[in-house]
Amino acid sequence: MQQNFKRTIWFNEEGTLQVLDQRYLPHQTRIHSLLHSQEVVTAIKDMIVRGAPLIGATAAYGIWLACKEATNDANPNHYFEQQMNALAQSRPTAVNLFWAIERVRKALSDIPSWEKRIEIALQTANEIVEEDVEICRKIGAFGLPIIEKIYQQKQKTVNVLTHCNAGRLGCIEWGTATSPLYQAHDKGIPVHVWVDETRPRNQGFNLTAWELEQYGIPYTVITDNTGGHLMQHQMVDMVIVGTDRTTRKGDVANKIGTYLKALAAKDNQVPFYVALPSTTIDWTIADGLKEIPIEERNEEEVKWIQGSHAGEIVSVLLTPANAKAANYGFDVTPARLITGLITERGICEANEAGLLRLFPERV
Amino acid sequence: MQQNFKRTIWFNEEGTLQVLDQRYLPHQTRIHSLLHSQEVVTAIKDMIVRGAPLIGATAAYGIWLACKEATNDANPNHYFEQQMNALAQSRPTAVNLFWAIERVRKALSDIPSWEKRIEIALQTANEIVEEDVEICRKIGAFGLPIIEKIYQQKQKTVNVLTHCNAGRLGCIEWGTATSPLYQAHDKGIPVHVWVDETRPRNQGFNLTAWELEQYGIPYTVITDNTGGHLMQHQMVDMVIVGTDRTTRKGDVANKIGTYLKALAAKDNQVPFYVALPSTTIDWTIADGLKEIPIEERNEEEVKWIQGSHAGEIVSVLLTPANAKAANYGFDVTPARLITGLITERGICEANEAGLLRLFPERV
Repeated sequence: MQQNFKRTIWFNEEGTLQVLDQRYLPHQTRIHSLLHSQEVVTAIKDMIVRGAPLIGATAAYGIWLACKEATNDANPNHYFEQQMNALAQSRPTAVNLFWAIERVRKALSDIPSWEKRIEIALQTANEIVEEDVEICRKIGAFGLPIIEKIYQQKQKTVNVLTHCNAGRLGCIEWGTATSPLYQAHDKGIPVHVWVDETRPRNQGFNLTAWELEQYGIPYTVITDNTGGHLMQHQMVDMVIVGTDRTTRKGDVANKIGTYLKALAAKDNQVPFYVALPSTTIDWTIADGLKEIPIEERNEEEVKWIQGSHAGEIVSVLLTPANAKAANYGFDVTPARLITGLITERGICEANEAGLLRLFPERV
Repeated sequence: MQQNFKRTIWFNEEGTLQVLDQRYLPHQTRIHSLLHSQEVVTAIKDMIVRGAPLIGATAAYGIWLACKEATNDANPNHYFEQQMNALAQSRPTAVNLFWAIERVRKALSDIPSWEKRIEIALQTANEIVEEDVEICRKIGAFGLPIIEKIYQQKQKTVNVLTHCNAGRLGCIEWGTATSPLYQAHDKGIPVHVWVDETRPRNQGFNLTAWELEQYGIPYTVITDNTGGHLMQHQMVDMVIVGTDRTTRKGDVANKIGTYLKALAAKDNQVPFYVALPSTTIDWTIADGLKEIPIEERNEEEVKWIQGSHAGEIVSVLLTPANAKAANYGFDVTPARLITGLITERGICEANEAGLLRLFPERV
């Protein structure tokens, strides 16, 4: 994205809101314009955009568009509420979506004039974007010294393994797990990334590989089976992943397979870090294995895979047609396997004392 | 195969040697006739047949065909040697292939008459087949009580996880890791198998799933990322895998990703067994991690995947077109993670003392 896309959502020179259509990555780079709030609803629903921060930001701009559209409607208030509902229902499981919508709604609540509402909605959406960029930048700034230190000791390329996509494609600019990598690269530290495929949805091959390539960071794609072997042979200097939900004791729910890499890292004394904005910390739960319900997704995601064939993007069946498949979206990595949590307030040990040191307001 | 195929290589009612064309599994069940030794060479070279025991047996029948063809050749000895060479070169890395060829060659060495040679070649090939069946049957008989015991304690379906295909498709009849499963099923013990996809070549989805379905054993396909989560939630009662090479101290080189499952099994107190014919034990090496070289295969196997699309078998690209991929074929599971080795002579601990107890001639 250094060359082509500074951010995952932007206004072009004509002032049109645009995003990458992520459904076609890594095979095709398509830019998608969002001219109407209904197009925002579709973009979220159809997974043209994905990743909690990006979904939230896109929805916020959707409200701004709805405000503009409302002024042309015979019944502006009715139209506006209808579009707000449509946005809220575009991805029922996306907590960040509701958070962003509520934030903009609150900002608009005491503003009677539609002209002013348009202005405030845009301003709030821009704030949401800039705050995410800043949080991710800080995560990178705190993670950077870990990579620098390995480089100082090793004096050779630092090999980092990552699982899934906790990258800029799900955020606005830096990403979470990728932010330290980008900042190390910017500083001239040679970094090479082992990119886990991340079956079944292949976010590693589709998204992480693509965005690292865009940024110019050397990477090698590997199957999800490979990381253990690489760690046994000192080919991984550190692991860094994202998280969907973190308990107050430091257990981490992340894309299925993360736990296996954490076990291999522990067995081979490879540092295993989790990068996270503090919004992913669920202070109400302690034991990740017992308290985090794991989503079971459609079995077709396991049985079929999407790829490029003769210039077309097609899905192919991988199993006997009648095979039954289980599709758990996440697993829980116990805190005992985690070297440190990298947050926008600094790095801490993956336990309650560590997290409360950084977030004393949660004591 | 209960319904359709008792074995992976057989003579049909007309006396024609036949195999399954495994390249089309699980999407198409094609039977392939081997009428000429040159067709045997092609079947091995093109991976119509795969798996060490099956390759060895197929090659042995290839020699029998070559003997028959030699009698029609102006220069039978020359023709025969030429076909023996072609067979030996059909899969340069298959140790079992050379072993089978040498065994038949030896059996023929003092036989001058081509009529008699045809007879001896067929007899030796049949012996190779029957011996493999018997070894696999014994592995199953020794493994069966492990499953029986779990069932007695649990009184519910026994959930077994397996990685790759150590099944009948690579052998003649029972397979190695699958043999205890088939025998438990035959005995009426309810068994359910979690089938790891086994990227990059997907032997789990392509072969293990197919052969379990043929046999009528309930199974569920899962991505390679999933096993850890299942074990954390007591959804796996035991793991059983095969091995390509076993050291005298009990380290095991098996398909890449096996090590990750062994780590998860250890972390969750799930028994982890390796089924092996003693021919896979390399008594000359002790430390698997240091002494077993791991084959690096073509990166296209990682970047592309084969599946069924609109009735056709096609390959699709999964990564950015220029992505670099690493493709390690195997990893080493240290003996400390293995509950037991199931051999044709019984079960032992995965260490030198355990193996030497079963194979005292190796002391």
